[in-house]
Amino acid sequence: MRAAWYVGDGRLALRPAEVVEPGSGSVQIDVAFTGICGTDLHILHGAMDGRVTLPAVLGHEMSGTVRAIGNGVSGWSAGDPVTVMPLAWCGSCPACLAGASSLCHDLNFIGIDSPGSMQPVWTVPAVTLVRLPAELRLESAALAEPTAVAVHDVRRSGLEPGDRTVVVGGGPIGLLIACVAQAEGADVLLLEPSSERRAIAAALGFRACDPRAEDVEAVVAGWTGGAGVPVAFEVSGSVAGLEGVIPLLAVHGRLVVVAIYPTPPPVNLFRVFWRELTLIGARVYERADFERAVELLAAGSIPADTLISRVDPLADVEAAFAALDSGTALKVLLDCRDGA
Amino acid sequence: MRAAWYVGDGRLALRPAEVVEPGSGSVQIDVAFTGICGTDLHILHGAMDGRVTLPAVLGHEMSGTVRAIGNGVSGWSAGDPVTVMPLAWCGSCPACLAGASSLCHDLNFIGIDSPGSMQPVWTVPAVTLVRLPAELRLESAALAEPTAVAVHDVRRSGLEPGDRTVVVGGGPIGLLIACVAQAEGADVLLLEPSSERRAIAAALGFRACDPRAEDVEAVVAGWTGGAGVPVAFEVSGSVAGLEGVIPLLAVHGRLVVVAIYPTPPPVNLFRVFWRELTLIGARVYERADFERAVELLAAGSIPADTLISRVDPLADVEAAFAALDSGTALKVLLDCRDGA
Repeated sequence: MRAAWYVGDGRLALRPAEVVEPGSGSVQIDVAFTGICGTDLHILHGAMDGRVTLPAVLGHEMSGTVRAIGNGVSGWSAGDPVTVMPLAWCGSCPACLAGASSLCHDLNFIGIDSPGSMQPVWTVPAVTLVRLPAELRLESAALAEPTAVAVHDVRRSGLEPGDRTVVVGGGPIGLLIACVAQAEGADVLLLEPSSERRAIAAALGFRACDPRAEDVEAVVAGWTGGAGVPVAFEVSGSVAGLEGVIPLLAVHGRLVVVAIYPTPPPVNLFRVFWRELTLIGARVYERADFERAVELLAAGSIPADTLISRVDPLADVEAAFAALDSGTALKVLLDCRDGA
Repeated sequence: MRAAWYVGDGRLALRPAEVVEPGSGSVQIDVAFTGICGTDLHILHGAMDGRVTLPAVLGHEMSGTVRAIGNGVSGWSAGDPVTVMPLAWCGSCPACLAGASSLCHDLNFIGIDSPGSMQPVWTVPAVTLVRLPAELRLESAALAEPTAVAVHDVRRSGLEPGDRTVVVGGGPIGLLIACVAQAEGADVLLLEPSSERRAIAAALGFRACDPRAEDVEAVVAGWTGGAGVPVAFEVSGSVAGLEGVIPLLAVHGRLVVVAIYPTPPPVNLFRVFWRELTLIGARVYERADFERAVELLAAGSIPADTLISRVDPLADVEAAFAALDSGTALKVLLDCRDGA
């Protein structure tokens, strides 16, 4: 079979890949769809060459069906629809011993640190499988992983039904956080400079502002009677986004820092002090987040059809990455079902 | 009578002050001792000229006895030993309405925004009074306000008995946080570049390191079995202190940002994400914190004699500020009992 490989130097190539037999405790999956994540794009741009071993099969947002099971695996049968929580932890570091295995000091993020799902057949530890309900379309189910990120972020925020919340950044994760927050009963304001992305947000029923054109502090003050919001999410990864959101928080407000800042940005700690704000780091998810993500997708709370801009055959992986990179697409899936 | 006035241009002056009669709801206090706070020093340096109305009687860390009570005040008698929680809130802003009156949007910090206790007789709202036990010396009781800050910081941190914790900065607030944390059952490591301050910390029974000379990450890794600490306090207000403490935190670790950063410092948000850390702003205190501070002082859990470097007559206010400014003194009290 052929897989999509990142071969370094900003290049992807469709090359032969070995079909890995499912060893003890493992499961072999017929991959249906694999989503392209912003992290995959960072990898393609060389930003993670220090971490990724070349050549690498990428892909960690996926759906598929069980193809074969290894020794010692029970509870799964060929044909079962599944997604994968792509984390493998060591079990013995201080984080694992403290019960925070998703923050394992030696975490293997499958699809980054080990082979991913941009191939027709993928073999992973059985413990990573998450069952999909039969009624959930596999295209939609490929959004389970980024939706689990959003569920985790919302859970870390302590958002309560009825809360007003601001989401900074209307990319896939920002929109998913908005959807999850709305599903949990919150009222969402999305800040996003791109008019195309604001249009999508509006189509999904969210209030959206252009933070470059509008006085967002005045908007939020009017919206909250001068109090500010109890919860916000910084998903833009921009210094301006971070600077702009902190003054929008009410006393004792909580900001979940979802975006990854490779270099330390300036943070308005005076305001953090003045209003006794809390800044909360959030990384990946736990199993409960993944299961909740699947529930929300199955319930139709996540508008998968709107979020998925296009589905390309695995053979067109370069075009698919290019579409995402150009900013014209929101979420791009690769259809991995063909022999490629 | 004469009070110590901040008259601008970095100058203090002993000048006449009016004895304010206690109006309805107010209490007149014979001030015994007033501590000089780092904030008073900032004010003297002109850093808060935009906020302070000149000339100003400073002072918000104090002890004294009730001298006279105004109409409508009950529960207090002349001679009662008291300290003052120097906050007056509006009662109607969103913070007050949310029950966070110490974060009132229009907070009057008595001693900064209105006249303070660097005078022999001081009149304040009766609701600010906190009763002192008869057995607590008034010199020690003058530490109630900064101790309440420390109690509040420790409470915001969620510190548990048995936790290991790092305190960055061995000034008065850093040492008080260390004392409160120890009183709550934690094991404290203090980071402080000054050898004089490390000697005080060691005399108080704390482990202390020089972060410029020692590999603090290795020290903390050895101390915690590679896990890092669950709680830390940034009290130095330095970019280096903030940069150095974040890597010392365990997964899900909490950093209380106690120091005031007038300009936004760079913050290692990558590490905040990677270990799911929480940064917690902490400002002033609530009544429960003040009452706990008085309890700790009365119980001898706060080594007031070691922390108080000198007691100067109010008339020597300039020398007292200069001693604090030179770094040779830790906590300096003004004895306000004389007619000055």
